[in-house]
Amino acid sequence: MQKHFADRLIEAVKKKDSVVCVGLDPRLDKIPEFIREKAFKDEANLGNPLRAAAESLLEFNKGIIDAVADIVPVVKPQVAFYEIFGYEGMRVYGETLDYAHEKGLITIADVKRNDIGSTAEAYAEGYLGETKIEEESMRVFDADSLTVNPYLGSDGVKPFVKVAAKEGKGLFVLVKTSNKSSSELQDLFVYDEIAKGKDAKALYEIMGHYVDSWGADEVGESGYSCVGAVVGATQSAQAKILREIMPSSIFLVPGYGAQGGTAEDVRVCFDANGLGAVVNSSRGIIFAYAEDGSRYDEKSYAEAARDATIKMNEELRKVL
Amino acid sequence: MQKHFADRLIEAVKKKDSVVCVGLDPRLDKIPEFIREKAFKDEANLGNPLRAAAESLLEFNKGIIDAVADIVPVVKPQVAFYEIFGYEGMRVYGETLDYAHEKGLITIADVKRNDIGSTAEAYAEGYLGETKIEEESMRVFDADSLTVNPYLGSDGVKPFVKVAAKEGKGLFVLVKTSNKSSSELQDLFVYDEIAKGKDAKALYEIMGHYVDSWGADEVGESGYSCVGAVVGATQSAQAKILREIMPSSIFLVPGYGAQGGTAEDVRVCFDANGLGAVVNSSRGIIFAYAEDGSRYDEKSYAEAARDATIKMNEELRKVL
Repeated sequence: MQKHFADRLIEAVKKKDSVVCVGLDPRLDKIPEFIREKAFKDEANLGNPLRAAAESLLEFNKGIIDAVADIVPVVKPQVAFYEIFGYEGMRVYGETLDYAHEKGLITIADVKRNDIGSTAEAYAEGYLGETKIEEESMRVFDADSLTVNPYLGSDGVKPFVKVAAKEGKGLFVLVKTSNKSSSELQDLFVYDEIAKGKDAKALYEIMGHYVDSWGADEVGESGYSCVGAVVGATQSAQAKILREIMPSSIFLVPGYGAQGGTAEDVRVCFDANGLGAVVNSSRGIIFAYAEDGSRYDEKSYAEAARDATIKMNEELRKVL
Repeated sequence: MQKHFADRLIEAVKKKDSVVCVGLDPRLDKIPEFIREKAFKDEANLGNPLRAAAESLLEFNKGIIDAVADIVPVVKPQVAFYEIFGYEGMRVYGETLDYAHEKGLITIADVKRNDIGSTAEAYAEGYLGETKIEEESMRVFDADSLTVNPYLGSDGVKPFVKVAAKEGKGLFVLVKTSNKSSSELQDLFVYDEIAKGKDAKALYEIMGHYVDSWGADEVGESGYSCVGAVVGATQSAQAKILREIMPSSIFLVPGYGAQGGTAEDVRVCFDANGLGAVVNSSRGIIFAYAEDGSRYDEKSYAEAARDATIKMNEELRKVL
């Protein structure tokens, strides 16, 4: 078995001196034309637009990965943007994970999967473990970690923890998300056993206590467990509370940049050593070339992504 | 555009005189050996165990679909059991949806997808709508409806409602699930605007109110909307409350049979006319041939599934 997931991630953060996670969320219509043109003219893809679209995504991703592999620890492909191209999209989703691995990056499969019992096990085996086929076992989507939605409770999370712990892999449980309507459910005030005898607590706090308990037996040498939490960059008041509730969970922090979160906002997600969180940016990095007033042409999309990453690294280093 | 989703589903329920949904959750090691053997020996699959596994699933599903198509209105393939075989699994997931369509069945893609904004849109387009590729549009996973996890709030559900309403398709939002630990989150007592001035309510009730509001503008001639709810068969006390909160939502009821729910338990999920819900059974039908004391051999797996379905139809007709 490989090393503990949290230890690997913390080590990579130190080595690259970066807490940035690059979100690989390619949208076909924003991929540079020269990439699409090549894919759609390729003989192997003729008459198969789903395959041509998928190959465009993969080619684009490789350029981004090559451009950022030495300056960030981790990338996070969002599966919806691959799944929309059917099984061809899922094929290049797996190939994107593999390519990122080859380039020394840790991967977070942003799939937000959720189900119970043997169904959750199937997802866990498919993304973190091994698929058994007759007498063989093989890795299918070979991610280092994945995101999980906790609406179903422990039954829907523990199968992922089990496989992650066994494989030196990890998971990030949605706790407090970056979107506006996350308050509808996640901020509800609740009475619960965990809060008994105390004041009412917000639901995201209860969820934080659960996440802490799910990871309690799986803490690595770094002091962090294989069970992380998704905590939005736009939610710094809640993030501060959650940092205390989940001292052993690495935070995956979306919502930076395009969604409004700043370096100051996310500071509270980190521990005293400036560790314990990674901050994701997707559009702001991968489509930096296409931003208003950009000085890059589409051929320089990877360079633009690298420069945007360097800038984000610097912004975050200043506050940590 | 085709007819309203709820009207189509209610019509199919009436036509088939059945409220049974057959869950297509194939596990490779429970698929009859003669099917697996054929797939693994097929020249097209040699040296490609993922493809052979996927083809086994598809062949098995076709047998089940042929055996039940005239006696149930709807089938529900659970995507985790396909995704575990990578993109080959996703290919036959799409082909299973298509085959069920050809045989006149309505489909529920049990994917429990969830995300926000343009990411949720990508899932909605991929499963209910059309994927745009350059100048073309095409259907990818052409399901009639899908399941959605609501932890992210309205931002994570409305993009699905929008596409469903436009396409004559539907969604089922997880409200109160059939698993034991569903209580951890879903049964928490909450204070909320919706419940203001009243007693504290359980979270699943708040979620029921949201589901009702999300579907309010999308009610068909049947009186039901395109926004349904997942309500576990094992939760009849809660189901009764939820039936009143969501008078316009069709319930998708998992947990029948193998998970412990009985015909009596699920009666409260229906309206006075015996409509407004479909009850899912997976293992109890598709793997009926392999049950203890079964009188069927593996070659008769489809016949066993049909007989189990007829029995479930009868059990449910008795209480409706």
